[in-house]
Amino acid sequence: MSTSTSPGTTTTHGGHVDRIFNFSAGPAALPEEIIQKAQQDIWNIHGSGIGILEHSHRGPVFDRVLAEAEEACRRVSGLGDDWEILFIQGGATTQFAMMPMNFLPADGTADYLDTGVWAHKSIAEARHFGNVNVAFDGTQCNYDHVPGSDEINQTEGAAYFHYCSNNTVFGTRFENIPDSDSPLICDTSSEMFGRPFDWDRHCAIYAGAQKNLGPSGVALVLLKKDFAEQGRTDLPSMFCYARHSKAGSRLNTPPTFGIYMMGQVFNWIHEQGGLTEMERRNSEKSSIIYDAIDTSGGFYTGLAQESSRSHMNVSFRLPTEELDDRFVEEAAAEKMDGLKGHRDAGGIRASIYNAFPREGCECLASFMKEFAARNG
Amino acid sequence: MSTSTSPGTTTTHGGHVDRIFNFSAGPAALPEEIIQKAQQDIWNIHGSGIGILEHSHRGPVFDRVLAEAEEACRRVSGLGDDWEILFIQGGATTQFAMMPMNFLPADGTADYLDTGVWAHKSIAEARHFGNVNVAFDGTQCNYDHVPGSDEINQTEGAAYFHYCSNNTVFGTRFENIPDSDSPLICDTSSEMFGRPFDWDRHCAIYAGAQKNLGPSGVALVLLKKDFAEQGRTDLPSMFCYARHSKAGSRLNTPPTFGIYMMGQVFNWIHEQGGLTEMERRNSEKSSIIYDAIDTSGGFYTGLAQESSRSHMNVSFRLPTEELDDRFVEEAAAEKMDGLKGHRDAGGIRASIYNAFPREGCECLASFMKEFAARNG
Repeated sequence: MSTSTSPGTTTTHGGHVDRIFNFSAGPAALPEEIIQKAQQDIWNIHGSGIGILEHSHRGPVFDRVLAEAEEACRRVSGLGDDWEILFIQGGATTQFAMMPMNFLPADGTADYLDTGVWAHKSIAEARHFGNVNVAFDGTQCNYDHVPGSDEINQTEGAAYFHYCSNNTVFGTRFENIPDSDSPLICDTSSEMFGRPFDWDRHCAIYAGAQKNLGPSGVALVLLKKDFAEQGRTDLPSMFCYARHSKAGSRLNTPPTFGIYMMGQVFNWIHEQGGLTEMERRNSEKSSIIYDAIDTSGGFYTGLAQESSRSHMNVSFRLPTEELDDRFVEEAAAEKMDGLKGHRDAGGIRASIYNAFPREGCECLASFMKEFAARNG
Repeated sequence: MSTSTSPGTTTTHGGHVDRIFNFSAGPAALPEEIIQKAQQDIWNIHGSGIGILEHSHRGPVFDRVLAEAEEACRRVSGLGDDWEILFIQGGATTQFAMMPMNFLPADGTADYLDTGVWAHKSIAEARHFGNVNVAFDGTQCNYDHVPGSDEINQTEGAAYFHYCSNNTVFGTRFENIPDSDSPLICDTSSEMFGRPFDWDRHCAIYAGAQKNLGPSGVALVLLKKDFAEQGRTDLPSMFCYARHSKAGSRLNTPPTFGIYMMGQVFNWIHEQGGLTEMERRNSEKSSIIYDAIDTSGGFYTGLAQESSRSHMNVSFRLPTEELDDRFVEEAAAEKMDGLKGHRDAGGIRASIYNAFPREGCECLASFMKEFAARNG
């Protein structure tokens, strides 16, 4: 029998015995109070007699939902009016194509850091539109770290420099923003609003919602206005940032529920203490699990080098694949779900975004110790 | 005082006094029992201890949700295995671009019927990729009808022939599928699964979900497999049907909640009696309002010619714009929301998709009579 505590009896985040710890990499755990509010609002929001799923995207109720989401986004991020805030369908993968489509001329070159599975995919999409210089090739080290400046080979006069700030699969992150002379574009899907960020070093930042911000089906896209103005305007409308900006995220029917949920999450982050508090919590939460790895006497091996360790995705493996599988299975029986590693990395991955409770990390660490003692 | 009945006291679809009649053109009314089920399932679906918004799109719970949605789609439609069923983000407007991107060669020509505001937009998107022949120009008649075969000028050897089966803004529909020698593509966003349909006359059919199928943020795309195989494979992945097909709608994180809701709606349609029953109800529902127009002695004027009248969107106007506005305002006070016509058409529009209850149509017709008597 495991000695790990059971969620529902010890959790302070709602105390509901019918919910378990969800370590999914995305879609991922949401704050329980937001789900409870959504239960009401999908039936009847703001006393309108109509649920949020059913409101016209041009009506006054959704006007308010959209305005409040944007306002809450600015409040949490501190972004100024020189930034455009857009909600666009298609996830980060659509952004992989839209960024070069809008900002990479056919005869231009963009720098990309290949630091993980998703960064690698973004490069393949960019090559449809122009030249790509792979300024760091992480496949050589099996993505075990993000590069320092001495490992990055920049192109002079690149159209932009693209990187992924947190790499979900192997669990690495840039502690510091990489140096670049070109306009910086960042895919921060898996840690958006998980820590304070120097937005103004960038010209474009995007994140699929389903990790730290809300349900799947919408991406948050932040564009510095002076950079956005250099983008193409002759594209099919749904692929053109200028068109989305002009229409204020309502070029066609937007994913209204996703935007509603993101607004709730932004407000929740603010109420919890903002990005500084998120960073504090995420640092502590991840340390609990990294400590369990580092004190296991080699039973658990982290996939990331220590200096590159992510606070959002903790990836590790056990001595054998058979033990990996048993670990996942037994953890599930202890009400810890979603721990199986990504198919490209194997092993175990614990994704512990903003909404994931500290108690879940303690529960996992406790289980890790107990499992290692039994199987070590 | 109006004599119209109040929703909540007379409705048989739940009897909830805190909900009103929602005539929105989309996002639109959903079956109340589905919203109630979603209230549970966003907290904890299938006893998994995790809500549908938070489940991994690669996990067993979503495997089941996706498989059941596709299965229910086939059950309701009767579509065979020679059809691909895809769930794609971006709404119909993304399909406006993806269809020509995948199927219209740069030197090819596609025929388009310009029968309304959205059909018109689809033409502008197609022109980014190849030549468009506007085979019918409805701007000449202010979109008051859909064309008969004698009004359509087809191109021999067109890459495809594109039409919109129901035009939401002016409220027209094709009672019969137009004749064409080219592969038929249909945008049926505003009446998908509102009546039986001869799918096999087509090679591609698509619909944004937010009218008849679910929340906004996902489109249902049906592709005849032998046609799909002729599409391009060298496109950015999110814009490439072949890539979506190969990945079984999970090329990236799909809009999991939207797919869940569509599955529920497909099942609901089946349980209600399927497409034949939907057509019977929609025909009756729309007749109730059209009768109120036709018996008003000219106080109300329908925007569509009788032979082209939509069963989904009933558009009409009053003698003056001032009366239009007063009508909308007083109807809202009687718990009927969303009746203001589209900005391109003005007047009144009552959208009464599958989930909209007959009682709401009776309530509106009764209000129309009473309003005309007071203001006629």
